[in-house]
Amino acid sequence: MRKALIPFTLLAAAPLLAQDKPAYPAPSEIAAAAPKANWTAIAASDLLVMDLAPAANGKPRRVVIQLMPPPFSQGWIGNIRKLAAAHWWDGLAVTRVQDNYVAQWGDPDGEDKARARKLPDGLAVVPESEFVERLTPIKPIKRSRSRKPEHLSRRLANDPYGHAFFGLGWPLGGKDFEMWPVHCYGMVGVGRNMSPDTGSGAELYTVIGHAPRHLDRNIALVGRVIEGIEHLSSLPRGTGPLGIYESRAEQVPIQSLRLGSEVPGLPAYEYLSTESESFAKYADARANRRDAFFIRPAGGADICNIPVPVRRAK
Amino acid sequence: MRKALIPFTLLAAAPLLAQDKPAYPAPSEIAAAAPKANWTAIAASDLLVMDLAPAANGKPRRVVIQLMPPPFSQGWIGNIRKLAAAHWWDGLAVTRVQDNYVAQWGDPDGEDKARARKLPDGLAVVPESEFVERLTPIKPIKRSRSRKPEHLSRRLANDPYGHAFFGLGWPLGGKDFEMWPVHCYGMVGVGRNMSPDTGSGAELYTVIGHAPRHLDRNIALVGRVIEGIEHLSSLPRGTGPLGIYESRAEQVPIQSLRLGSEVPGLPAYEYLSTESESFAKYADARANRRDAFFIRPAGGADICNIPVPVRRAK
Repeated sequence: MRKALIPFTLLAAAPLLAQDKPAYPAPSEIAAAAPKANWTAIAASDLLVMDLAPAANGKPRRVVIQLMPPPFSQGWIGNIRKLAAAHWWDGLAVTRVQDNYVAQWGDPDGEDKARARKLPDGLAVVPESEFVERLTPIKPIKRSRSRKPEHLSRRLANDPYGHAFFGLGWPLGGKDFEMWPVHCYGMVGVGRNMSPDTGSGAELYTVIGHAPRHLDRNIALVGRVIEGIEHLSSLPRGTGPLGIYESRAEQVPIQSLRLGSEVPGLPAYEYLSTESESFAKYADARANRRDAFFIRPAGGADICNIPVPVRRAK
Repeated sequence: MRKALIPFTLLAAAPLLAQDKPAYPAPSEIAAAAPKANWTAIAASDLLVMDLAPAANGKPRRVVIQLMPPPFSQGWIGNIRKLAAAHWWDGLAVTRVQDNYVAQWGDPDGEDKARARKLPDGLAVVPESEFVERLTPIKPIKRSRSRKPEHLSRRLANDPYGHAFFGLGWPLGGKDFEMWPVHCYGMVGVGRNMSPDTGSGAELYTVIGHAPRHLDRNIALVGRVIEGIEHLSSLPRGTGPLGIYESRAEQVPIQSLRLGSEVPGLPAYEYLSTESESFAKYADARANRRDAFFIRPAGGADICNIPVPVRRAK
C-alpha cells in the first residue's frame, strides 16, 4: 500500500531516545492500555440493534445503540423497549437526514392517522419535566452509591452552556441543581412535535454533526450509537425542508430493530468507566494533545470533543 | 406530501395573539430579515470551486469554498491560488473520509516520489509561526480600521479552549495576545506531515463532524465550505486507518478545481457581517432559542454552534 500523507494522526509517539523529549501516548493509546477493571460491560438488554436494508453493494448495515441507564429518560426508554420487543420498527425507514444535524427514523406515515402503524398498547406519556433530573436530597440520585453526586464530579472548565461533566459513562450537563444528558455526536434522541408533546420514543434521531446543545433540556436523549453510525451519517442528505427525504425511494428501509438480548451472536461491548483513573488520563490527553503530531496542546476541550471510549470486549 | 413529523424545527413562531407570549423569530429568520447593508459580498476571486465527478445518479457535485481574508494563513492561501490557477487538482481525488472528523483531497500518489504529480514552481514554505496571528502594536492588525481589535470583540463567554469570538466574518480563537481561526464544521485546512512540515496547501481537508478544536494552532486553516459540503460529508467512510480509502475505486475523482473568478456563471455569495447588529441578534438567538419549538433556552452557545450565515446574494 502506498505511504499515506496523513495530515493529523493517532500515530504512536516515536520511540524514546536519550535526546528526545518524553513520548506522550495518544488518547486512544491511553484507553487501549487501561486495565480491564476500568472498563464496564454493557448488558445486551441495554442495546438496540438496528439492521438497515443492505447497501447497494450488498454490504450489511448494522447500527448498535446503547440505551441510557437510570435515572435518565427511563419513561421514554421503557416505551422503546416495548416498541423493540413488538418489532414495531421492522419495515419502517430512515426518513430524514439533515447535514450537520441529525438522521431520523420511524414511521413514514406517522402523521397520517389513516395509514400510521398502530403503536403498542401501554406506552407512557412522559412529561417535559423528565428532560432533566433534579439533584435534591429526596431523589434517589443522592442515595445510591453509584449515583452519588461526587461520582459526577469530573466537571470540565468553562462550558458555554453551564456545567459539563461525565457520570455513569455519559456526557452530562448541569446547572442549578439539575442535570441532563448532552447532545454530542452519536447521541440518540426522541423526536417530538410542539410542546407539551414530548414524543413516545417511536420516532428517533441521532446527531451526525456538531453538537446541537441548544436541544439539551428540550428533547429527551435516550442513548448513543456505539457502532455503525457511518451507516446513518454517510446517507444522502434529504432535499426537503429539514432534510426530509421527498420520496419513498430515497427512504432507507429498516429491516429489523431488536433489543440486543434478542440478537443471536451479538458481540459484548464495554465502555471506559468515566470514574476511572484511565478515563481521567484519557480526558486530560484529549484536552492537551502532546503526542507526536501536535505542537501546541489546546489546554482545554469541550465535553463533546471527549467521546467516551466504547469497544467490543476482548 | 404527507405531513412530516418534525422533531425540532426552524418553523416560524406562531402569529402573535393578545393572550400569547411574544413571538420570537428563529435565528434563520433574523438572518433572512437582516438589511442588505449587514451582508458582505464575497469576491469570486476569494472562492474555490471544486467539481467532483458526478454522483452515480448523474447529479453534479459542486463544492464552493471561501478562502480566508488577511491576515490569516496567507502563505498557504497564496500557494492554493497558484495550484488552482495551474489546474493542479484536476484529475486528483478525495482520498480519505473519516467519520466525525474530516474529508480530505489531494494527490493519491503524493507520497510516492516516482508517481507524485509535480507541484508548480514558486510555492512558499510557510513556517509554523503562521498558524497564529500575534496581536502586538507593530502588527498591521492594529492599524487597519477593518481589523481593529475592537471589531473582534464579540467574545463568547466560557470557551473551553481560551477565548472565542467572531471577526471579519469568521470564527476565531484567542489567548495571550494571539488569535487564530477555529476548526468548526466545514472549515478547510491544510494537511501536513510531522512538524516542522506545515503542508503546502496541495492536500486539503474539511471538517465533517464535531469541531476538532485540538487541531487549532496545529494546522493551518484556509477557508470554509459555503455550499455543497453534503457532497463530501455524505461520502462513504474509508475503511483504512484514519478513514483512508483502501482502493482507487473508492476514491472520488476531482473533475476540476478552480478559482471562482475562472468559473463562468458562478452565483454571487455574501455573508452576514459579524460586526453587524443583525449578527449580534442572530448569535444571541442561537444561544437563547425562544422560538416556538423550544421550552428552555440554553443560555449560551459554543462558537461552532453559531455558524456564520452565508447565502447566494439576491
